[in-house]
Amino acid sequence: MDLSLFFAGTGGSVPGARRGLPAILLRRGGDRLLFDCGEGTQRQLVRSVGLVDMECVFITHFHADHWLGLPGMLKSFALRERDQLLTVYGPRGLNELMGLMRSIYGRLPYELSIVELEPAQTVQRDGYLVAAVPVSHRAPSSFGYAIVEQPRPGHLDAQLAEQLGVKPGPDFGRLQRGESVDGVSPQQVMGPEREGRKVVLSGDTEPCEALAIAAHEADVLVHEATFTEEEADRARLTAHSTARQAAELARDAEVRLLALTHMSTRYAGGQLRDEARAVFAATEAPRDFDTIEVPFPERGPATLLRWSERQARERAATGEADEPAETVAMP
Amino acid sequence: MDLSLFFAGTGGSVPGARRGLPAILLRRGGDRLLFDCGEGTQRQLVRSVGLVDMECVFITHFHADHWLGLPGMLKSFALRERDQLLTVYGPRGLNELMGLMRSIYGRLPYELSIVELEPAQTVQRDGYLVAAVPVSHRAPSSFGYAIVEQPRPGHLDAQLAEQLGVKPGPDFGRLQRGESVDGVSPQQVMGPEREGRKVVLSGDTEPCEALAIAAHEADVLVHEATFTEEEADRARLTAHSTARQAAELARDAEVRLLALTHMSTRYAGGQLRDEARAVFAATEAPRDFDTIEVPFPERGPATLLRWSERQARERAATGEADEPAETVAMP
Repeated sequence: MDLSLFFAGTGGSVPGARRGLPAILLRRGGDRLLFDCGEGTQRQLVRSVGLVDMECVFITHFHADHWLGLPGMLKSFALRERDQLLTVYGPRGLNELMGLMRSIYGRLPYELSIVELEPAQTVQRDGYLVAAVPVSHRAPSSFGYAIVEQPRPGHLDAQLAEQLGVKPGPDFGRLQRGESVDGVSPQQVMGPEREGRKVVLSGDTEPCEALAIAAHEADVLVHEATFTEEEADRARLTAHSTARQAAELARDAEVRLLALTHMSTRYAGGQLRDEARAVFAATEAPRDFDTIEVPFPERGPATLLRWSERQARERAATGEADEPAETVAMP
Repeated sequence: MDLSLFFAGTGGSVPGARRGLPAILLRRGGDRLLFDCGEGTQRQLVRSVGLVDMECVFITHFHADHWLGLPGMLKSFALRERDQLLTVYGPRGLNELMGLMRSIYGRLPYELSIVELEPAQTVQRDGYLVAAVPVSHRAPSSFGYAIVEQPRPGHLDAQLAEQLGVKPGPDFGRLQRGESVDGVSPQQVMGPEREGRKVVLSGDTEPCEALAIAAHEADVLVHEATFTEEEADRARLTAHSTARQAAELARDAEVRLLALTHMSTRYAGGQLRDEARAVFAATEAPRDFDTIEVPFPERGPATLLRWSERQARERAATGEADEPAETVAMP
């Protein structure tokens, strides 16, 4: 089951030439969930992976740079006659905000479900859940989100199963799904349950204990890093984090990979990444359109895939000539 | 006095990979006026000419693709501590719309003036006016805008003035400003008044007589061309224009240059331009970030300057190495 994060916008507060406003598209199998939707998100998607019909949008908090792209995107879905349900989740106050947006996007030809979440409330999805993690920001109610997969069955000991008389093939599948086969129970041949993957997104926050707890041993923690330590006072004043603080939290929570986001336009990403890496080596600073792929742990660590690499890979896979992509050639 | 139009977004309804949502920045001398402000306009500016502190924003009508970039831009101005007045003009209903936006952008550290215009009302500026032209679209009240310069004084006949005893230098300036010098009156030595330049923007509209009248002999008419003739029914249904209709209007109004905009993402710009050129040869289809420069007529016709040419020209002027610009290299 593929799991990845696509960074549609890695800036914060104001858009820069290189970084759009916050939006992260999580894909798991056929599921697409969007986390935040800053102004211009629909176009960021159009210019990269396409404006996918995501099933859910999760808003972290109601500062405008995190949701102002939503009404236009809802409208664009309407113009192309979307007919499937879209669910928008967010903190208390979401209904009021969506009421304001409704006067922008008007009537929609698809069903829109609006769900206000309480802190720590979870949304069950097929094979995983999304939990609202209360974080500490200036907005009245601010969430990070933890995406947590259900545990997976353990490894099947194929040799042992065959010794007990089970034939490889469909019967192995039945054992893996928890059924007994010819008197052989799953407990006899299956190893211990394995933990699912966990991806945690901080939203906007100053260093926050609830988030550190939620992020414990996460495969990926995406944490805001609005400032460097030089601007630590400003970070404190605005309830944001420095790159160093994000790294300290990642280290203490023993996450496997830290990805920085919500980077102020005043910095090059490398500056923030280097500050974080001095504390926590497994840190990346994704650029817009980069992807983090999150394999099952036994298949290797989560890794950053640059947009240019991804395009090259996809061109190679489809046999297309190696030409500059449209998104590079356009103004 | 320089006069130019910068196309910050040439798409319509939904953003495409190559075309952002409607926004045109008019520069005249030190004045900067923005016409429409679709979602993502602030970033289009950041990525090209910079997010300039324009004095005025004129909204053509209240469909979301024409104004949804405004609250975020107002907020960005606030974050960088703008302190000069910003005036927003638009049709009746603007106050209500800005009330809705206020709940998005919050308190501003600069004065915001909101002015509802009646059809045909004019805004006087230093040396020119902006007139609201009622056009025909589905929004209850939709404007195009005509930017009309005051007439300029005629040519000074220098030879004649000297024969009459006026010395070249400051006294020539006084004659040009309408003062008599040593018994010589301006009427004796100045040619007839010359017309100022005129630029007309259609906003969204089906072919519209009021606009044709306003555009008579304009130096530049920027007219929407949402569709080709193949989609003429759809154009009629949605009260938009085809490229051919825009060209017919430009021809009948005897404009000097037609620039197409609000082009649907379904077309390459060349397709719309070619359809228009079959009727009216002096047609351009600007891409995002292109500029139209509008010199005084005696210095030549208005011309389209491609963004890449402009960058090359500016690099040459500043002596910078000829490297790919950031806006091309970025995702």
